[in-house]
Amino acid sequence: MDAIETPFGSTGKVLGGSATFIGLGASLFEVDSAIVSVVGGDLPSEHLYRLEKKGINLDGVEILPNRKSFFWSGRYHNDLNSRDTLETQLNVLADFEPKVPEAYKDSDIVMLGNLDPAIQLDVLDQLNRPPKLVVLDTMNYWMDNTWDLLMKVLTKTDVLTINDEEARQLTGEYSLVKAAAKIFKMGPRYVIIKKGENGSLSFHEDQIFFAPALPLREVFDPTGAGDTFAGGFVGYLAKYKDISFESMKNAVICGATLASFCVERFGTERIMHLKDKEARDRVEQFKQLTQFEIELS
Amino acid sequence: MDAIETPFGSTGKVLGGSATFIGLGASLFEVDSAIVSVVGGDLPSEHLYRLEKKGINLDGVEILPNRKSFFWSGRYHNDLNSRDTLETQLNVLADFEPKVPEAYKDSDIVMLGNLDPAIQLDVLDQLNRPPKLVVLDTMNYWMDNTWDLLMKVLTKTDVLTINDEEARQLTGEYSLVKAAAKIFKMGPRYVIIKKGENGSLSFHEDQIFFAPALPLREVFDPTGAGDTFAGGFVGYLAKYKDISFESMKNAVICGATLASFCVERFGTERIMHLKDKEARDRVEQFKQLTQFEIELS
Repeated sequence: MDAIETPFGSTGKVLGGSATFIGLGASLFEVDSAIVSVVGGDLPSEHLYRLEKKGINLDGVEILPNRKSFFWSGRYHNDLNSRDTLETQLNVLADFEPKVPEAYKDSDIVMLGNLDPAIQLDVLDQLNRPPKLVVLDTMNYWMDNTWDLLMKVLTKTDVLTINDEEARQLTGEYSLVKAAAKIFKMGPRYVIIKKGENGSLSFHEDQIFFAPALPLREVFDPTGAGDTFAGGFVGYLAKYKDISFESMKNAVICGATLASFCVERFGTERIMHLKDKEARDRVEQFKQLTQFEIELS
Repeated sequence: MDAIETPFGSTGKVLGGSATFIGLGASLFEVDSAIVSVVGGDLPSEHLYRLEKKGINLDGVEILPNRKSFFWSGRYHNDLNSRDTLETQLNVLADFEPKVPEAYKDSDIVMLGNLDPAIQLDVLDQLNRPPKLVVLDTMNYWMDNTWDLLMKVLTKTDVLTINDEEARQLTGEYSLVKAAAKIFKMGPRYVIIKKGENGSLSFHEDQIFFAPALPLREVFDPTGAGDTFAGGFVGYLAKYKDISFESMKNAVICGATLASFCVERFGTERIMHLKDKEARDRVEQFKQLTQFEIELS
């Protein structure tokens, strides 16, 4: 659960969490998906009900009735590009032991949200076989505190999604091109570096793909944008069953599209109620925004 | 003339200046172009010779033998995204009276480099007729000191090129979408907001086009990148004689392409010796970087 303050107002405790945004992003593609997580008895059951209504399997979500859910509260600065964390309560996440449901131990695509690499490794260890694609998110905290485990999970990762500052910290390289090259050596064959309102850069071998963020009149609340991006990314790949770099370009565009909705309202408000037609129209906007026809004589 | 310090080294006094970079950018398109400017007797004549060899008409460049050329020196910080000005000597620019050569008073495209709006207006006043396209660059200094004149030249401007911070200062809007809408009301029908390594956004009516900067392993010296971008932009438009927004998208890609070369060496070194084939190959790289084929089922 999150409590968010922005220049536009503040929420009480609302539904948040990586898995929530990733799941909602992927659910737009109507793929068979499941969340592995843990919540406390304080989580209003309507939230779980709504996620299930989106077709997300929650058999892997453990409910601990006598404990409290993870809680984060933060305050965004005026430009919405930076924020202060006001409070982090790990609660049920402090001793989380993930349990992958039997029916999902042969999953083709596994998205490991930003969490302790020990837990990310635990999830992979429970699978019957290596997935076709493991996508990993992480952050500076795990680089500072669990470097060796992070390196281990990276060796099992196909796609690393990470923001620009984290990519620089992970590699010691300022140039994102050099940073991606170093990350390749850590394991991932694909690297997606997220730059917030400045879009994302995807790297594979010597190829680079750039996707902008949709320029918006107003960013209301950036919380969850990166996870919604990742959800759209894996949702697209799962639906079209093509994990080539060309397919990933489209997946990144879908991720950027869904992220652009996410920031229009607090928390999950916008993405929870997003209509298929709205998303399709916005993919068209991305084409208008980026496509050109140049023939030099 | 400029003297530049970067983490990679420093130059002595080298050729610089908006008109130089704009002219060199446009010269790649082999269009009929001329520079209107003023230099002192200290400018080594080889520089003028080299610019003329590029096909740039210099009849409008006044040489004042007993005076000194404009001089700027600056030091870039480690990330090359910010810099300190060490010294600015206006010298001949302090009382510059531009003189547009007779043969260029019917020019179709006029690019007004970043300078006092009074001088920019003077150039326009000397023309026989309004050009088909007036492109204007400016900076915060003129907003702070010559607001009314800047507003006046904006009413005669078709395309404003400006960086993101300047667009925010000019309009008081943080959102670049809102900033562009306000700039439209000041006169320009097209607004190109440059974001350095984060690319550029071009606006026209309700259309937006995003062009990235080419991700580079190393940025060596950003001096002149914005002007080279503008030079490529107007060079493309002049060559293909099409000033529609669709054509401007291609012009922006050409501008971004040339800017990506500019930053690879100190000052004009790279762009002065750029080969046509190199530029064409890099336009292809931009296609690879940004183009995708998405069909949602």
